[in-house]
Formats: sequence, C-alpha cells, structure tokens
Amino acid sequence: MGKEQLSPALFIGVQGEDIISFGSGQPDLPPPDAVYKILPDYRDFKYGLIQGTSELRQALSRQYPSSTADSFVVTNGASEALDLVLRAIARRGDPQKNKVLLARPYYYSYPHIVRFAGMEPVYTDAIDGRIDFDDFAAKVPDCKAVIINSPSNPTGRVEAIDTLKKIEAITSELGVYVLSDEVYKDLIYVRENYLIAGPHVVTINSFSKTFAMCGFRVGYLWSLDQELVQETIAIKTHTSMNTNILGQEMALAATSVPVSFIEEQLEVWRQRRDLIYQGLLDLGLELWKPEGAFYVMPKVEDPEDFVWDLYERYNTITYLGEWFGAPDRVRLSYALDVDKIEEGLQRIGQYLKSR
Amino acid sequence: MGKEQLSPALFIGVQGEDIISFGSGQPDLPPPDAVYKILPDYRDFKYGLIQGTSELRQALSRQYPSSTADSFVVTNGASEALDLVLRAIARRGDPQKNKVLLARPYYYSYPHIVRFAGMEPVYTDAIDGRIDFDDFAAKVPDCKAVIINSPSNPTGRVEAIDTLKKIEAITSELGVYVLSDEVYKDLIYVRENYLIAGPHVVTINSFSKTFAMCGFRVGYLWSLDQELVQETIAIKTHTSMNTNILGQEMALAATSVPVSFIEEQLEVWRQRRDLIYQGLLDLGLELWKPEGAFYVMPKVEDPEDFVWDLYERYNTITYLGEWFGAPDRVRLSYALDVDKIEEGLQRIGQYLKSR
Repeated sequence: MGKEQLSPALFIGVQGEDIISFGSGQPDLPPPDAVYKILPDYRDFKYGLIQGTSELRQALSRQYPSSTADSFVVTNGASEALDLVLRAIARRGDPQKNKVLLARPYYYSYPHIVRFAGMEPVYTDAIDGRIDFDDFAAKVPDCKAVIINSPSNPTGRVEAIDTLKKIEAITSELGVYVLSDEVYKDLIYVRENYLIAGPHVVTINSFSKTFAMCGFRVGYLWSLDQELVQETIAIKTHTSMNTNILGQEMALAATSVPVSFIEEQLEVWRQRRDLIYQGLLDLGLELWKPEGAFYVMPKVEDPEDFVWDLYERYNTITYLGEWFGAPDRVRLSYALDVDKIEEGLQRIGQYLKSR
Repeated sequence: MGKEQLSPALFIGVQGEDIISFGSGQPDLPPPDAVYKILPDYRDFKYGLIQGTSELRQALSRQYPSSTADSFVVTNGASEALDLVLRAIARRGDPQKNKVLLARPYYYSYPHIVRFAGMEPVYTDAIDGRIDFDDFAAKVPDCKAVIINSPSNPTGRVEAIDTLKKIEAITSELGVYVLSDEVYKDLIYVRENYLIAGPHVVTINSFSKTFAMCGFRVGYLWSLDQELVQETIAIKTHTSMNTNILGQEMALAATSVPVSFIEEQLEVWRQRRDLIYQGLLDLGLELWKPEGAFYVMPKVEDPEDFVWDLYERYNTITYLGEWFGAPDRVRLSYALDVDKIEEGLQRIGQYLKSR
C-alpha cells in the first residue's frame, strides 16, 4: 500500500496508543450526563412521527425566530437533512436549472450529495477561507441553490456578517435556495452566530458537535418554506421513516442542558485552537486563524507526502486538503487533548525538519 | 375535510381510547427485555463505522450462508437499505435501462423510492396475491432490477418456493438485480423462510418486525456482490453516515435472544390471523388467506367510503388498497389485541349492515 491509496476511509477507526489523530472531526469530550440519564427507564419502541417527535421540535422552535414545531424536520444527522433538502429541491422548479454553488474549500460530502440528487456542483473559490462575494454574485444567478457553511469545515473560518447579509439579499431577490449548514454554530470564537434568514433559507443543524452526540445521528432542518418542509417529509417517509426515537429523546434531554455546558466547552476548544494555531505558525507554516469549529488548514509542500509520511513514520493522522477542494493544504482537526496536540505538533516538527 | 383527503399521513399518530386501528403495520407487543438491558450502562458517543459495527455484522453473518461481516451494511431501517441499493444500482451499467419490476399489490413506498432513485417502476399483477411467473418472465428482460417481498405487505401472501427458484434462475441468467425485502421472514405461518440466492441478489432485512423495534430504525442489507455493497457504503458515507450506534447495540442484544421468543410471537400472530381471517369471511368478504406478516386485504365495494365511513362513524382505521396498487381492496393490519380485533370486526359488521 502506498500514498496513492490515501482516503478518509483509510483512517476511519484507526486507533492505537501511540497514534495521534488530527483526522476525524468529532468532539472527544463526552456528551452532557443528561442525555444518558433518560436511558435506564426508556421503554418506547413504536414508530414515531416522520417529521420528528413533537416535544423535540417544540423545544427547537424556542431557539429559532418566527418558528413553530412545524418548521422542523428531525433527521439522521445533518447529512440526511442536506440529502433530503437537495433531493426535494432537485424535483422543484425548472429541471434544467440544476447547479448548486459551493464555496471552495468545501466539506467533502457536498459535491457528492449534490450529484447524488441529480444536480451539478459549481464552485466559488474562497479568499483566505472566506467567500469572495463578487465571484459569488457573478455565479449565483445561474444556480438553483447555494450551500453556506459558516463556521466552515474544513477552513475553520467564519463569514463576515456583512457578507451573509449580502448573500441573504441576492438569493432572496433571485429566488435561489440557501442551505445554511450551521452545525458549528455553538463553536465560534469571534462573535455570536448569525442566523441567515429568508423565504428560501433552509438551516441545517445537529446535536453532534454542540453536544458531542455524533454517533447518535440526530440532526434537523429548519425552514419557513412550509412547502419545502413538507416535501422533505414526503421523501423521508419512504427513504428512512422516523429518526431513531431514542436518539431523539437523548437530543431532547440535551436541549435542557444549561448554557454553561456550551460555554465551558467553547473555552476548551479555544485553548486548543490557540495552541495548535501558534504551534503551526512556530513551525513556519502558513495558515488561516481559525475562528470557529475545530479545524486548521495549513498550506504544505507535497501534501500527499506530508499526510502519508506522517502516518507511516510518525503515527500521526492528518487529512489531505484535496478531499476538500484545497490541493495545496492539509486539514487537521484539533478535537483532542492538549497533551496530544503538543505531541502531534512535535512529530510534525520532526517530520518537517527531516524532509 | 372529506374522503378525498384520505392518506396514510392522515392516520399516523391518531390515538384514542375508543379508536380501533387496523392501520399502521407495526407490532404492538414490546421488544425482548434484552434490548433495554444494555441501556443503563451505555456511554459511547462517537461516530461508528459507516457500514455498521463489526460486532453486529459478525452476529448477522452467522445467520446467512457464505457470509462474512463484509457482506452487510447496517442501515436506518429496511427503508434506507432499499433507498441506498436503488441509488447505487441506478448509477451502474446502462443508464438507459432504468426499469424496476414490482409485483402489484406492492408496499406503498416502492414506486416512490424507485422514482426518487431516478428509475421507473413497472408492474406485474399478482394472481391471488402471488407472482404470476409467466408475466414476470415476459417483463423482467427489460428491467435493471426487481423487488420481491415475500411475505408480502400488503397481501400477507408467501410466494411458492418453486416461483422463487424460477426467479433466481431467470434473473441470474439475465444479470438483473434482485432486491429481496424479507422483513417479515420470521412471521411465516406456512413454512420456513426461503432465502433467495444469487450473484446479484441483495437481501433487505430489519429488526423492526421480528423484535418489535420499529422506532429504533435498524435494518440491514446483505449481498455477496461486494462491489455493490461498497457502493452503498460510499453513498451512505455522504447521505447519513453510520446508523445510530445505540440502536445498533440494541439490535446486537436482540441477536442473542433465544429462538423461543420468535416462536412465541409467531403463535400470537397465528391466533390473530385465524381470528381476523375467519371473522372477515363470516362477514361475507372475499380475501386471500394470510400466510405471513400481519395483513389482510379483503375486497370491498366502494373502498373510499368504507375507509372514510369506518373512520368517521366507527372510530376504526383501515387503509385504502389503492395506496398499495389494489384499488378494489382495503388493507387491515392485525397487530393488535384479540379483544380489539373482535371489537373492530363487530364495527365493520355493523357498518356493512348499515350500507
């Protein structure tokens, strides 16, 4: 096996005492106790509403403006929410208009799910990890939908509110759908989250990152476009039915967790962010300062060698930027202990010296 | 509101002390205790393998011939398994060859998910609820895939083994995919289940019916076509990621439940089957004798009036046969207590007398 086999699948599930993984993007800190507390007495087993339990959707409606429980669909993670919305949109309006605009670097699933839905991904290249609005504005009239992801996986950047407002205005005027993937909305170091609004906005969110519930796969979509909401439910009725009822009950428990839980987590993430950002700068790498989520994306020479050699010779996992549309970079998740981040930085330093 | 609004969605979640529901197809008896026993100590939370946990797939591999854990993908219910396989098949081979053959009456999701995958459903009309092999053989050469569902929802019929063997032979010869939806394999009153075999067979199954775990959404697909298995995983990686890890752990617990659990359940189902079958015959209705699953499908005059009036005037829910491709019939699920079945039969009798 050699570096030509590099893929995220190669690294999934790779564990070991001496392995430092900057790979997979999931919190290492456990969920709040509350989500486990409901388990011992749980005895339900029947199908639930396809749209999600009323209790969970009501709890969510208190977090979003102008909302009722009807504005939400609970899904198998944010992934299914995106997939359902794209499938619904693909069947709406002019079938010839089938382009979906993505900012590059992008989350690696986006181009795939756009194509799976029978649409075509087109790209606007970000500048320093942020949307270049002029290029965006030039390309969006030809598109049926755009996907916005702020904070961004993989760049760790947060869009300027001014840009988001301009995106709201132009998409609203053109009648273009905005899928706003905000799964990192509670992990922003620089400001409060800005919720994109508009008649054709679908916000995608999840319990995975805020509450470390990745494995339970509870996400949701929120939209004031009732017709679109109903169409996603109609699709989900046949493609997966209700989201796991116990996962939804755990998510409901998470909605009552005090906000201090999130604040304390954010402090942990900020310390790690500072550590890895300064550490990579000290190693002479060029990178954007992360403003949210838990990723850094330094520029490196020969990224394939970098990823492969670090794995083979230093037991250290990093991801190729190419998987995210950034072939001159690598992505590191810093969802691990400071001790491990320090050790990982040392290994990267040793490797860089050696080449 | 009137009978023109009749749809399964109208009845979902309708409950009440005096309502008798022959509607939704899910067991009313609870899952085995074992599936709840693991809950109090459960503490995992991270992403799992997209394909499903190794432990669950290994347990499943002991139930299927010539299998390893690699032959399985654990999915969000049988629904997602079907959806993933259809999406994978649609992308394979000749894109012009896009027909999927369904026996009519069919499970009501089939035509939808075939279309969602960009393919076209075509139909072979069953005779007395069983596949008419001559018609099947005439239509299958033009198809990319067929869906077999024995025991059948909605007819309750079980295919003759001879027919299944002829289907195996002709599809194998033609290179047509067989999706065998066997979610009722453990609820057969007339013989053991016959597992369809072949190089392009994908068996779809679930913990929902055998172990009353509908709400937890744990299904799976099994196939010896490794390439197709890998393609379904590649799609699931982007469209929903792993199936809920806790649901999978509950399913794993179910695999260790003694076979006597299933046998005792089957006895309960058989008594109910005998009761409703004889009861509907006594009311003068024409119907096929159910051989598996928990549905009966009597022929009735003016089915829309039947379903609507029974609901409005007798608090009794039944489903329109039209939703399953059988416009002169209705479907009744007998997943309820014998007391309720008797009460429901009485109401149907009163209604039939009144019209």
